[in-house]
Amino acid sequence: METVVSEKKQRILEAAACLFRDKGYSATSMRDLAGAVNLKASSLYNHISSKEEILQEICLANASRFHRGMEQIRELPEDDPQGRLEALLKLHIRIATQDVTSVTSFNDEWRHLSEPYLTQFLDMRRAYESFFRRVIRKGTEQGLFRPADESVVLYSLISSLRWLYDWYEPGKRLAPADLEEQLIPLLIRGILVG
Amino acid sequence: METVVSEKKQRILEAAACLFRDKGYSATSMRDLAGAVNLKASSLYNHISSKEEILQEICLANASRFHRGMEQIRELPEDDPQGRLEALLKLHIRIATQDVTSVTSFNDEWRHLSEPYLTQFLDMRRAYESFFRRVIRKGTEQGLFRPADESVVLYSLISSLRWLYDWYEPGKRLAPADLEEQLIPLLIRGILVG
Repeated sequence: METVVSEKKQRILEAAACLFRDKGYSATSMRDLAGAVNLKASSLYNHISSKEEILQEICLANASRFHRGMEQIRELPEDDPQGRLEALLKLHIRIATQDVTSVTSFNDEWRHLSEPYLTQFLDMRRAYESFFRRVIRKGTEQGLFRPADESVVLYSLISSLRWLYDWYEPGKRLAPADLEEQLIPLLIRGILVG
Repeated sequence: METVVSEKKQRILEAAACLFRDKGYSATSMRDLAGAVNLKASSLYNHISSKEEILQEICLANASRFHRGMEQIRELPEDDPQGRLEALLKLHIRIATQDVTSVTSFNDEWRHLSEPYLTQFLDMRRAYESFFRRVIRKGTEQGLFRPADESVVLYSLISSLRWLYDWYEPGKRLAPADLEEQLIPLLIRGILVG
């Protein structure tokens, strides 16, 4: 699903993601974007056809990143839900800290996708959340995770990492490895029995 | 700072908050809003002068809610940081579940405020975060909370409740009291020593 993009196009996608974060998708114009990457609007159209195309590329590329991560985590033993859960949290931290465009699909900008992209995006998200729920359920069934409402656990965990998308900038004081080391125990301890 | 608003105005603010959540502030028009509250656009202007005025009222009313909550929590004993932290988390849950307009200032719509409202809003938020940080620091100094990066703890906690603003609807399966009972231990256990 992910396509190889040129270096210039990647730079345009990243600048667009920052503008979407700061101003919102609706308020960002192609003129703003051209300014952010130092191109004339006419040259910008050599690389992308519309603002909506950018949103599609960003959202589907990120949904694909989560999808590929999930496929790798599925290879981990099913009867080690703690290992799988830690891997899921690491995946979120890695995506949030490594790809500035990920903020766009995590903020509510995906709502602006048109069909068939919206359905495609939501289907991938639903599959991801349903895998995440199964990991939580397995841990609870094994008596390893405290019994709790599945939705509360799922959305709190995912949501608790959301600030990274707004806050994290590469080169900041905390490296991704430090963040993992701090965040994963913070989140996991709330869930584990004993 | 908070002003008493008529019932009709309150209904307009709530409808605006839902539109801001679903479409974003920039993409919401006064015409959308008039439609949502079954008024003619001309009648809408009897109650509010502009979309920006709505945003100002919503954001400052919510900042005031957090401010008043913080003032009450400041009355709790300083040497019981766990009690204060639990009260802060309850305050977030209460505001998220009781007032649909709170979503607007929690999402990134506050960025669209103009001056002097933006500075006013950010000052109140800064004061609130700084109180929250002091509670975390106190718990860590007392050896009650695990040593961790203060920003990581602060933003993870606040962020972990953010999904409530998108997800929670009054009358849903989980009452606010159930949410508190599930969420507070989930969040607190990650922080406490032992």
